[in-house]
Order: sequence, then structure tokens, then C-alpha cells
Amino acid sequence: MSAEKCLAKGSTAPGPVPKDYIRVYSMRFCPFAQRARLVLKAKGIKYETINIHLKEKPEWYLKKNPLGLVPTLETPAGEVIYESPITCEYLDEVYPEKKLLPSSPFAKAQQKMMLENFSKVIPYFYKIPTGRKNGEDVSGLEADLKEKFAKLNECLINKKTKFFGGDSITMIDYMMWPWFERAEAYQFKQFLDGTPELKKWTELMLQDSAVKALMFSPDAHKAFFKTFLDGNPDFD
Amino acid sequence: MSAEKCLAKGSTAPGPVPKDYIRVYSMRFCPFAQRARLVLKAKGIKYETINIHLKEKPEWYLKKNPLGLVPTLETPAGEVIYESPITCEYLDEVYPEKKLLPSSPFAKAQQKMMLENFSKVIPYFYKIPTGRKNGEDVSGLEADLKEKFAKLNECLINKKTKFFGGDSITMIDYMMWPWFERAEAYQFKQFLDGTPELKKWTELMLQDSAVKALMFSPDAHKAFFKTFLDGNPDFD
Repeated sequence: MSAEKCLAKGSTAPGPVPKDYIRVYSMRFCPFAQRARLVLKAKGIKYETINIHLKEKPEWYLKKNPLGLVPTLETPAGEVIYESPITCEYLDEVYPEKKLLPSSPFAKAQQKMMLENFSKVIPYFYKIPTGRKNGEDVSGLEADLKEKFAKLNECLINKKTKFFGGDSITMIDYMMWPWFERAEAYQFKQFLDGTPELKKWTELMLQDSAVKALMFSPDAHKAFFKTFLDGNPDFD
Repeated sequence: MSAEKCLAKGSTAPGPVPKDYIRVYSMRFCPFAQRARLVLKAKGIKYETINIHLKEKPEWYLKKNPLGLVPTLETPAGEVIYESPITCEYLDEVYPEKKLLPSSPFAKAQQKMMLENFSKVIPYFYKIPTGRKNGEDVSGLEADLKEKFAKLNECLINKKTKFFGGDSITMIDYMMWPWFERAEAYQFKQFLDGTPELKKWTELMLQDSAVKALMFSPDAHKAFFKTFLDGNPDFD
């Protein structure tokens, strides 16, 4: 259904999206693209994946998405949607099967506030490994990240639920998961020892069929991340 | 209906929100809070305003919104919603009168992509005046902002519509307006001379009843912004 090898500068643009399918432009190891892929998979949507070389972007791709980022969705009608939270909400609205966002406006707003809060956690997943690689003192950043994990843990305690939106997986869980899948590869896994509810959440997430279907091993993440930190990412 | 004078540290927390009302915590000159107020006004929602001293935040306010930012909404049920785009979408979902977001998922996604794009324009509205005040060379920043205005202008040309979401005002127009209301005060107005469609849009926006009802004069914005740049903002 999908080409795994990424398309780079000079490649030929793919043809129109087949009827009844949606296309996602992705990069195998991109956590933002993984968000859209998790939603596609969880909702059982028929989709095809085209991987993009993010260092040597195809000219035709920049015409579709001037930012050149992934994920981008494309429909058979040629509609183009990008920015991971926007793609995910779009998918949830267009495909009514297995709704991932709550229908109550307040519960939906709560998920969006959690997502906004989580967007301030993400930079630590890059700053710390980069700092470590450069031999810098990252203890302050590590303490900050631990505190952020503690806040997430507290959120689960206060809600008294297994997942961030209730006792079953909803959108917010898929939005946060990709970074936790990489926790071991990024050497953050031990930080979870101080946050048992959050750790339990990661264990429950690992049992989800969409998570399992799209998952890479810590070794695969580690190998990619090494090439990424070295400035020469191997997207395949 | 609303107290204009802002509440600071040591103030008493306001009581519950009256039935059939919604409360917005605001700051008179905050462009982000203005977004929510524009939506409240445009939709004819009954609301009360409580202004917050953003330098000396009331203790009770930080309990409602730990980020301490405005806007924050509070309902009679004690539900709290913050982050300006989240508050605006919440209001549009809860109050069905005069829908501001399109019902089509793709058109809605387009508005969100435009908003995301505009969020990269906003920092220039602060960097340039700060740079000017410090006697720095801001010609590069000014050129960048002019280019961003040119992109917005191009967007209106390509859409062939008066507003960013069509021929009538929709959500995206209100999300962008507060910064353009301040263009004269921030000495950016001449930048619009090179972007006639965008300039025309600002003129049409000035005729909107919600915009007119909440507007401050360039002199009032200038006076506030001076105290803001001096590091001692006068929130009243």
C-alpha cells in the first residue's frame, strides 16, 4: 500500500490519491507524523504513506506544503492539510468511526489545553540529548523534564483515570505517545520511575493495537536518533 | 456588567459566574484576550469581564489558570478554559448563534492552518518595537514583516474574497485583527501601503460592529505600549 523508501529532491511527484483512500506524507521516525498515523490506524481509515526526505525535500512537496514539514494529508480531491494537531482533528471529524475527541465542547477544550501544555514538554526531548552529545551540563534540563513528568503524573492522579482523557484511549493519548515511545532510546526511561501513574500509562499504551502496529523498537529509534544528532539523519 | 479596573495580588476572588453569563478574565490591552472578547461580542453572548494585573497576578487567579495568562473563560459551572484559540473555538461550539468557524472539516482545517501561520507573524509585532527602542538595526526584521504582510495579501488575492475565510467575517479574521488594530500605534501602518488587499481588509474590519465596540484608539494603544516597553505596563 505504501512506499517505505523516502522521496527526495528530483523525485517524481506521486499521482492523485486513489478514491476511498487518504494519503499521509510522513517520515518513518518523525513523532509528529506518527500522531497522524496513529489516528489513521486507530480509526481504521484506508490510507497510503509516502515518506519524504526531510533534508532534501522534493520540489513538488514544497508546492503542496510550503513549510515542507510532515505530516501532511492529501485527499482524492487534492485537499492538503498539515500541522499534526490539525490533521488529527480533521481525520476525527471526517471519519466518524471511533471518535477520538470527546463531543462535549468543554472536554474537547480540556484535551486541547493538555496538548498545549505538552507542547512545552517536547523541546526537552531534543535539548537534553543534544546537550549530552555536546558534553554540556544538562542536569538543570533533566530536573525540568522530571518536574514536567511529575505534573503529567499528577494529572492522571487527579483525574483518577487510566488515560489522559478517561478510562479508554482518546486523542490526547495518541498526541503524547510518540515521545514516550522514544523515552528508552533517548535515555529518559529512568525518569518514569518517579512517576508511577505515568509509567503505568506508557505500559497500557503499549498494549494498544494502533500503537503496536506502528511501533519501532528502542534500538531502531536509537539508531535513527544517532544519525539525526550527527546531523546526517538516515530517513530510511 | 464588568469591572474595568484590574485585580492584582491580594485582591478578593470574584464569586461564581452568574447564571446565563460567561466570564472572561482579560487585560484591557491584551491582543490575545481581545480575540475571545471579539468572539463573545460578535456572537452576542452575555458575558462579564474581569481584568487581571498581569505583573502582580492575584493568587486566586493562578489557581484557576496556572499559566496566569489571559484570556481565561469561566462558566457558571466553574469550568475553566484558556489559550485564546481554544477559548474561541469553545465559544463557537457552545453558542450556536452566528457560527464563526465553517462547518466543513476542510474549511475549518484551512482556518487553523492560517492561524498557525499567523502565529509566526505575531513575534515581529514585539521584536521590532523593542529593537527600535534599544536603538538596534531592525531593517532586517522590518523586511521580514513586510514579506509576511505580502504573503497575507497574496492569500486574499488567491482566494478572491474580502476576508480570510470568505466574503464575510469569520473566525480567522477576528484571530488576526487585534494586531492590525495596533499597526498604527506600533508604527507599522506604512507597511500596508505595499499590500493593498490587506489594507482594504483592515478598512473593512473597522466597519464591523464587534471590532468597533471593543476598539481602542491608536493613541490609547500607543500610551499603553509605551508603558509596556518601559517595563512598567499600566493595565488600567
